[in-house]
Order: sequence, then C-alpha cells, then structure tokens
Amino acid sequence: MSSDLRVGLVGFGYWGPNLARVFNSQPDCRLVAISDRSEERRRAARLLYPDVEVSSDDRLTTADDVDVVLIATPVSTHYGLARAALADGKHVWIEKPMTASSEEARELVELAEARERVLLVDHTFLFTSAVRKMKEVIAAGELGEIYYYDSVRINLGLLQEDVNVVWDLAPHDFSIMDHLFDRAPLALSAHARGHFGTGMEDVAYVTVFYDNDLMAHFHLNWLSPVKLRRTVVGGSRRMLVWDDLNPEERIKIYQKGAEVTSREGAYGIQASYRVGDMTSPALSNVEALKAEADYFVECIREGKRPFNDGEAGLRVVSLLEASDRSIERNGEVVEL
Amino acid sequence: MSSDLRVGLVGFGYWGPNLARVFNSQPDCRLVAISDRSEERRRAARLLYPDVEVSSDDRLTTADDVDVVLIATPVSTHYGLARAALADGKHVWIEKPMTASSEEARELVELAEARERVLLVDHTFLFTSAVRKMKEVIAAGELGEIYYYDSVRINLGLLQEDVNVVWDLAPHDFSIMDHLFDRAPLALSAHARGHFGTGMEDVAYVTVFYDNDLMAHFHLNWLSPVKLRRTVVGGSRRMLVWDDLNPEERIKIYQKGAEVTSREGAYGIQASYRVGDMTSPALSNVEALKAEADYFVECIREGKRPFNDGEAGLRVVSLLEASDRSIERNGEVVEL
Amino acid sequence: MSSDLRVGLVGFGYWGPNLARVFNSQPDCRLVAISDRSEERRRAARLLYPDVEVSSDDRLTTADDVDVVLIATPVSTHYGLARAALADGKHVWIEKPMTASSEEARELVELAEARERVLLVDHTFLFTSAVRKMKEVIAAGELGEIYYYDSVRINLGLLQEDVNVVWDLAPHDFSIMDHLFDRAPLALSAHARGHFGTGMEDVAYVTVFYDNDLMAHFHLNWLSPVKLRRTVVGGSRRMLVWDDLNPEERIKIYQKGAEVTSREGAYGIQASYRVGDMTSPALSNVEALKAEADYFVECIREGKRPFNDGEAGLRVVSLLEASDRSIERNGEVVEL
Amino acid sequence: MSSDLRVGLVGFGYWGPNLARVFNSQPDCRLVAISDRSEERRRAARLLYPDVEVSSDDRLTTADDVDVVLIATPVSTHYGLARAALADGKHVWIEKPMTASSEEARELVELAEARERVLLVDHTFLFTSAVRKMKEVIAAGELGEIYYYDSVRINLGLLQEDVNVVWDLAPHDFSIMDHLFDRAPLALSAHARGHFGTGMEDVAYVTVFYDNDLMAHFHLNWLSPVKLRRTVVGGSRRMLVWDDLNPEERIKIYQKGAEVTSREGAYGIQASYRVGDMTSPALSNVEALKAEADYFVECIREGKRPFNDGEAGLRVVSLLEASDRSIERNGEVVEL
Repeated sequence: MSSDLRVGLVGFGYWGPNLARVFNSQPDCRLVAISDRSEERRRAARLLYPDVEVSSDDRLTTADDVDVVLIATPVSTHYGLARAALADGKHVWIEKPMTASSEEARELVELAEARERVLLVDHTFLFTSAVRKMKEVIAAGELGEIYYYDSVRINLGLLQEDVNVVWDLAPHDFSIMDHLFDRAPLALSAHARGHFGTGMEDVAYVTVFYDNDLMAHFHLNWLSPVKLRRTVVGGSRRMLVWDDLNPEERIKIYQKGAEVTSREGAYGIQASYRVGDMTSPALSNVEALKAEADYFVECIREGKRPFNDGEAGLRVVSLLEASDRSIERNGEVVEL
Repeated sequence: MSSDLRVGLVGFGYWGPNLARVFNSQPDCRLVAISDRSEERRRAARLLYPDVEVSSDDRLTTADDVDVVLIATPVSTHYGLARAALADGKHVWIEKPMTASSEEARELVELAEARERVLLVDHTFLFTSAVRKMKEVIAAGELGEIYYYDSVRINLGLLQEDVNVVWDLAPHDFSIMDHLFDRAPLALSAHARGHFGTGMEDVAYVTVFYDNDLMAHFHLNWLSPVKLRRTVVGGSRRMLVWDDLNPEERIKIYQKGAEVTSREGAYGIQASYRVGDMTSPALSNVEALKAEADYFVECIREGKRPFNDGEAGLRVVSLLEASDRSIERNGEVVEL
Repeated sequence: MSSDLRVGLVGFGYWGPNLARVFNSQPDCRLVAISDRSEERRRAARLLYPDVEVSSDDRLTTADDVDVVLIATPVSTHYGLARAALADGKHVWIEKPMTASSEEARELVELAEARERVLLVDHTFLFTSAVRKMKEVIAAGELGEIYYYDSVRINLGLLQEDVNVVWDLAPHDFSIMDHLFDRAPLALSAHARGHFGTGMEDVAYVTVFYDNDLMAHFHLNWLSPVKLRRTVVGGSRRMLVWDDLNPEERIKIYQKGAEVTSREGAYGIQASYRVGDMTSPALSNVEALKAEADYFVECIREGKRPFNDGEAGLRVVSLLEASDRSIERNGEVVEL
Repeated sequence: MSSDLRVGLVGFGYWGPNLARVFNSQPDCRLVAISDRSEERRRAARLLYPDVEVSSDDRLTTADDVDVVLIATPVSTHYGLARAALADGKHVWIEKPMTASSEEARELVELAEARERVLLVDHTFLFTSAVRKMKEVIAAGELGEIYYYDSVRINLGLLQEDVNVVWDLAPHDFSIMDHLFDRAPLALSAHARGHFGTGMEDVAYVTVFYDNDLMAHFHLNWLSPVKLRRTVVGGSRRMLVWDDLNPEERIKIYQKGAEVTSREGAYGIQASYRVGDMTSPALSNVEALKAEADYFVECIREGKRPFNDGEAGLRVVSLLEASDRSIERNGEVVEL
C-alpha cells in the first residue's frame, strides 16, 4: 500500500485557498506546507490549517518531505518555481496560464520528461460536467461538422497588473478547444484596446481559424456591466449552447440546422431549416477541482501523463503569444 | 392646404407590406400603386388593398400621378429604380442597404440634390424608442467617454442569395453608430466564413476603430440556434445594455465603472470599481416605422433634408464595401 | 360542393378584429357583415373591410343571408345575441366567458341542441400548440399521476367594468383543465380583493380540488408590475412548465420527481429525488385562432359537436359562479 | 474591556456549520463547544474546528464556561434546549421556527425576560440587503398604500419528517411581513396537500388578511421542477419585485400603478395606468448571517432586545399554528 503524497502549496491568494481545501480533503494526499509572501494571507492560511506549516519561503518546492508542489502564484513566477520543483524530483501542478512564454513552457515540458515527473496545468474547466458533456457530444458526432465556436467571457473587473484580458480569460477557450476538437488551429487574429493607460488591454476580440471553415471567436472584456459566460458551438446537425451562469440549464442542445436545398430558379438559393426539440441534459454535481485533483493523483500513482499536461499548457501559451503578436500588429493574421 | 402625397411602392416581399400598411394609414399620404414581379405577391397586395392599382410594372416609379416612390426590392435593383424615380422628380424612400455599391449611392445623392428631392434611406432602428433613448443618453454625456460598442445579432435564418450576413445585418450597427457617435470610424477589419458553398458568408465578425481607443465590434450570424439582439455600450461613467428582445427592459443603464486608482506599490495597478443602481427607463410605444413615415412627410413638406438621407446611406454602404474588402484580404485592416 | 358559409360578426372591439381577420381569410367562409355600437369602431371596420356591410344593428344575427354568427361583445350581451341567432337557425361562435350565468348558458345549450346548430365557445388556448402538446403528454401518461396544476396570470391592466379579474382570466385555466384532465373538479375556494372601490376584484387566488389530492391553483392579478403567464403541472413521473411568454421555450418537460424510499430509521422519512434531462419540444407555429376557425367550419360541415361546445362553456361558467360565491363567503369551500 | 463571549453550538446538520463558521470569525466571540448526535457530523466538526470541544452531549447548553447557546437542531427539540440554557443564564439564539407550539414559545419569552437574557430567533432574511432595502422603501412610503404581498417559494426537495412545507418555508414570509408592515394580520386561510402518504403536506397555499384590503399570499412547494424565490409587493404608488435568485437584479422597483379616473359614461370605469422607469438599486454584499451575529452580540453587550426576539418568533409560530388549523379545517378562515 502506498503512503500519502505530501503536498506543498505556493501562493495563497485568489485560487490557492481552493487548492488547499481540495487537496486537504483528497484521501491520498496530505497538505503539509503553504507559502505566501503576504503576511495577511499567511495569517489566513494558519487560521484555516493550524496543522500545516505556513511560511514565506518558496523553497518548500524543494523541501525533502514534499512530493507534490502546487503553484498558484502570479504567472511571471511559474517558470522559476516549477523548474526548481521538477529539478528536485517533485510532481508539479501549475495554475493557468502555464508560463509567461512558450520558451519557458517548453523547458518545463522537457524537464518533466527528463525527470519522469507528472506536470499538470490546471485548466479546471476541462473537468466540469459541462465541458465533459460537450466533449462527449462532439466526440459522438452529434453536432455533425463543426461550423463555429463563439465564446463570450465578459464582466466588470479585475484589471490586473501582470496580464492583459487575453492572458486572463482566453486560456479557458484555448484549452477547451484544444480538448474538444481533434485538429490544431491554423492561424489567429486579435484586436484589443486598453482604456486606463496601463499598457494592459481590457477589451479584446480573438478569432481563430481551422481548416474546413471552422472559425472560433472570443469576446473577452473586463469592462462589461453584465457578466456573461456563454459559448455557442454551431454544427451541421445540431447546435449547442453552454451558459455557465445558468446552473439549471448549463448545456442546451438544439436540433436545429440549415441546409441549402437548391441553387436554381428565380430566387437563387433555397435554404431549409430544421427546428426540432431542445434538450438540456442533467449534469453531475461533482466539483471540477476535486475531480482534477483525483485525476492528478491517479496520474502520479500510475505513471500516466495527464491530457492537460505540460504540452497542452504549452499549446495554450503559444496561442496567447500569437494573440499578443497579432494585437501588436493591429490584428494581422498570425500563422501558427 | 396641401393635397395628399401620392405614394407608389415597388416590392411587396418581406418588408413592403409594412410600408404599405404604414403609408396607407399616414394622414398626408395616399397609397396609389404597388408593383411586384411575383404573381403571388400581387394577389396578396390586391386582397389587402382592393382600391390600389397593383401591377408587375416597375415603371410606376415614373408615373405622373405618383409623388413619392418607396423602394423595397432586392438591393441590386435599388439604384436603377431610385435613379429613374429621382430623374422624374419623385421623392424616394429606399430600404437598407441603400445600394450595391458606394458609386451607385454617390450618384443617387447627387441626383437628389440636383433635382431637389428628398432621398431617405430606411434605417428603421434610428426611429425606435430604444435608439432614441441611447442617443439622448450619449448626447447628454451620461456615459462619459465611450470605450466600446459591442453588438450581437445572431439567429437561425435567412440565408440569402444576393447579400451576405454582413450586408444583411451590419447596416443596423453602422447606421446606429453613425447616428450615436459624433465622429467617423477610422478603419475596420472583418472576418467571415460561409458554410454552404454558395459564396455567401453566414458568420461574420466586424471590428471598427475610432480615435481615443473607442472600438466597436459586431457578431453577425445566420447559423445560431438562439436569437440574440444585444448591444453593450461601455463608457467611463456609465454603461448601457440594449436588449431588443426584452420588451419590458429594452434599455438598462448601469452606474458601473472602473478606475485606476494607483500604479504604485507591491501589487502595481490598483483599480476601484463603482457599482451603483441600474435603471431601465420607460420607453414610448410608438411604432418606429410610423414615426419615420411621419418624419419623411415632414421633410418633404418643409423641404428639409432627413438625417438618414442619401449621405448617411452612402456612409453605410462604404463601410459594407470596406468590410467585404477586409474579408477578402483575410481580415486586413482597411483604412476608411 | 358546398357553397361558402356567410359569416356575420357582432362586436369589433378588442377581439373582434382578430375574428374578422381570420374568418375573412378562411377558405370556406365569407365575412359579410360586421356590427358595432361605436361609430369609431365601425369606421375602423369599414377601412379594413370595404366590401363588408358594417352597421350598428345587432340584428344581423338573424339576417337571412347570414349562416354563422360570431359574438365578440361584452359578456352581459352574449346570451341575448346567441339566443336570437340560434333561434333563427344560425351556427354560433361565442367569446369566453360564454354567458353571465350558468342558467343562461344552459338555455343556449338546449336551444343549440333543439335547433341542431353548432355552438362553440372560443377558448382559444385549447388550440395553441402549447396546450395541444400538454394534452398529448398528459394523455400519454408521461407525467404519471398528476399532483398539482399551478397557474400564474398576472400583469398591469385592464381594469374592467363588467367582469372581475376571475371572470377575465380564470376561464383560461378552467377550460384548459377541463380539456387536460379526465375528471371533474369536486370543490373550490377563492379569495379576492378590489382596491379601487368599484366592486370589481383585481387580485384573486382560486384553489380547485379534485380527487386523489390533485390540487389546482391560480394567481390572477391586474395590478402586477410584471407580466407572467406560467403554469406548472407536477406529476409523479415528470413535471411540466408552460411559460407562454417565452416563445423559444414555451414548454419544458422535466424528468424530475420525488419518491419516499423509507419511513423507518433514525431520520424517519427518507426521500429520493430523480433529476434527469429537461426537454423543450418544438411546437408548430400555426395560429391558434386559425386552427379553431377551421375546426368550427369542419364541425358545421360534418354536423359534429366541437369539444369546446356549449356544455364546455357552461362548465366554465359554473366554476366562475362558484368562485364568486366563495369570494362572497370569504373563501368558503364550495362543493361543485 | 469586556472579554470574549464563549459560544456553544447544538446541532451541526444543515445550518449549524454556517453558524460555526460565522461565530468562529466574529471578533467578540469564541466558539468553544459543538454538539451533535451523529458521529459523522461530529467528525466533520472536528476536522474543521480542531480546537473546539466536540461531543454528543447536549448539556453543553448549561456548561459553566458557555455564555451563549446557538440551537440548530430539529424544531421539536428547540424548546427543551432553550429552556435549559435560559434557566442556566445563557443568552440564546434559536433557528426558525422558534418552537413546535406557541405555548412553548410563550414560556421561553417569559423565561428570557425573567432571567434578563437575550433571546433571538434566527430569521436570517431580515438581515439580507434585499429585505433591508424593502424595509427602507416601504417605511419611506415609496410604495404608497400596500395592496398585496405575493410570495412564491418553490423547488424540488427536501421532504422533511418533522415539519410540513408550511413550517419549512412560511416562517420566511411571516417574519418578513412582520418586519415590513406596521400592522398585524387579522386572519388567514391555508390549503395544502401531501402526496406521499407521510402525513406531511408538500404543496401549500396560504392567504393572509390585513385591514384596508391588504392581502398576502404564499405559494410553498417542495415538488416543483423549477426553483423560484420571488416576492411581489404591489402598492398604489410603486411596485416592487424581489427575486432572490437573480443576484444582479435582486430588487426591482417599478414606477407603475393604476388609477380609476372615471366611473361614468358609456364604458363605465375608466382606468389610467402609470408606466415609468424601473430601478434596480445596488445592494451591499454583506453576508446576512454575519450582520445578524454582530447584531446579536451588540444586543448582549448593550442589554438591548433584538427586533427578532422571542416575541417575534412567537408571532411567527402562532401564524404557523393558525395555518395548520386552517389546513385541517379545509381552508376555513382562522381569525388571529
């Protein structure tokens, strides 16, 4: 029988407390150390986890009694922390986006391979019951040929200092499309503007091109008075809407479609439309982060490579870099 | 006392019946002639208007006993019909988009000027109580500096043969922005795809650039399982949402905003957010098309130039042409 | 081949124009006469139907050249008009509620029988695709045992002078339940209040009792700031929601239910819940009133008795009388 | 300087963990003891609060080192636990409904008075920003004369063993109306049915009568496929809707109303309608339970009597008893 995995967490800011909560209750893990640079956050951590060692020292990532390192710090620090942990033989879980550059990401991928450690990038959405259902529906061919993927992620807040709105919100869509579609994007174009003189874009539109006229598009916005999280996937046979803020009807599948039935005659194109039932499937209530933690442990135990591994994280970072490049060049299409 | 204006209508397809209904009940007008090439539509017109002359002959546009010509035919025919009518001294009302090219539109503008006739392009939305309220709110400076205009016009239907989804739906946003903003767009970029091998794009994204980092964006889509008509205008003081499918709360004004309060310190940028009341103003129930017909008559009676005149129609056609050019060049930014 | 039915319409107020429009285009009918006591309404009728005889004389109901009389006047006049028409051998269509008393209704039923004429009461909702779907679903046993029927019909408006809110809105639910359920109500109780000193109640709650603990309830309200038209039918196997103001998802069927699994043990009752998919079936777009007019003509042609005949109208009027009686007696349960 | 209040909690089931969390972080309190009869729940409590004494012994309510007792057990046990605690000089916080009978409640009120202890009944909703706003709006006379209060609390679950749906959900509305309105209800009537043979009603309708034709009504339902929490308050000047499941627009205030303008003439009653702006006020995000805990401590410190004291709890229990009586007597109106 294998003993518990000893887990250290770096970063107890916005997302870190969720990792602490989930790994603290994961049956095969023991949360043993938390570090954060803020005194206030360390106090919060101590209050909640009186038995865990809490410090300001990032070096827990290489401490002897730690098997697994969870990295939930600002993006710019991911690479250094992960490299140190991997180099020291730890398994590593990194928050998204994986790193600040594809070069850094590539290095981590190689290091994880060389040291035979599990490197997972936390794209939590992939473990939600909504995305699992979408994956299942698309994989079964229910939507037919995919025509477009359109995503809206807008709300008021949180202007950030080290990433723009693309790096903040697009990793969700890049990783979800990477997971759902069995093909790689060919090119992308992005437009964005910032309105506060900080050099950080707060409103952005990203368009991604695949073969067969599949087009994906995201509206990403930190300055919206309303909060929306809605993705539409249009296919030749069915269409799907994922509204993440409608907990009772998160996924809707429409038996709707269009077909060109004739191109002759006085009126040229004749189209017909199918309008059938809509179904909103029941989704399980399992917490996505718990499912992901279980999967991470399973990968470690069985020496498996997670599907959201460093390679997947690297692909997302490359798309973020391409978006930045396109924004700089005023929307120029960037080949991938 | 002036006598009634004698009105002839060309085209009794999708929109023509609305023009017939409204002008038939306009107190200063008399609907005297309707023409359509389809026998079936002529039958429908005769049933509804037994006292009106119904024929297949477009030449009513130049008939002696007609003062005003309403043109509600496919776009490609607008130019020829309007030119003949203006040349013969008629006042002209053209459906949007005004013409199939800016060259045609320019010629009509000149002809209307030369013949001193009223030339109005039917951008009906400008006469809705929702757009009037938006105009009032923006003109009063209530939104502060405008950051972005984001519009979603998506639904299932109507694949068309002579225009793509941009020419079908973007005239709404181009004309509304032309009406709301006191400045001209500087450039635009558009991406689109068609999925039926007809050469007509059915999904499109258009981005328009103004000075001061004002960015506008439209999602236009004939292949969406859900119908949405929603525009968000984000400003520095307030934000506004226009949801045209929510008749009880069509306009919402949010006392919400963001401000960068500091760029120093450990965490760099500090932003603060204002979250105040939302107000949904009562809107009048006047039918937009009736209001526009009254305004058209008023312009004819008083020799006034309508704000939605040929020049306004031309500006919209120029933006549609620029969109097509950008689509052909794979989203290249087109200066205006 | 039978000749056209000649149709006379009495009353051109709120609903009459819809009857005129539908019967004017019904292939087997010819609208030949319209009467209304208001000069203004007669003008409106003449404008729309220049070939129809328009008068202020109700006696068209007995005119020789009329086969069918449609009655769309205030409730208090239904009885007199219908009696005259039936006595003279006309087929009769009466708006809901059928009459001002069950005694009047009973007399009309007998007269229609004696004269062998078709007497139909216009409960339009029974011909909507939504109620047809509900009927189909319930008849097929899909909901299992019906536990409750809960209906909310609230909005701002229209305080009326000759009926209270129950007589205005409850006929919808009484007739729908009469149509959907294969059993008669056993008793009812109603509470209501008026707030304008007119003697007319503007807010009412009606509870109807059936055997097997099936309970129905309506909230009827003319003083609500929001408009709602929503009915929930809860059954042992499935539950159904009909939201008549949501045109894209008018009917939703939920695979949800509760079951008592044990009544033993420390915690007493153990219940389990089923939470499965929700389906919103596609509904046809046929106009209900058109379908009802076709059905009326079919009944006349084939000598059939419509399911929404005088008996059905009488049952509804009896329930309205019982509601009034319960309101007068402060909510006392009235046996039926 | 006063020392911390030592807090003991009885019951760690559905609501107890929330009390533990809030009182654990209340600056003037120290959570020192938790008791629950279930071994599983005690384990959960120990995991979360390793420093708190956790036991199965209810007698903590009288332990010397406890100043305050929080009672979050099934209703039937409230009286015994509270009596013991008060008798021993503890301040007491009881979950709603206060007791299983008004007799029990009255005794506790007297005991709290005699021992000069604070007795608070947890009607949490009174501390939400939504109800505070409603109180403020109504107290300022903004709604004018109140015509009706209509509340819908429906969802699927939780069939309970020791209370019916009225005792589960009506305490919310009874306590809110007690708080909002400056007058006492005069009478009530209730209809309910159970569908599982357990003797517990799962669907109920309660109507409450006040003077001046103010009528209140609740729809309470454990068998609804959809979850709704919506209250409409109709007044002569304005109307208010509280939708507790719409976090972004929880309260809406409508400048809508009706007025009878004439009772003469051909059409009898003439009504006019005001339809003005709707405003959704910004609400604070303070957690209601935290605010209530602070208020409880303040009452203890300053020897004040909370507005949600034992008397308020007793009034609610009396209304619940009256509801049961009316249900037993088939909806008979019960004078209060």
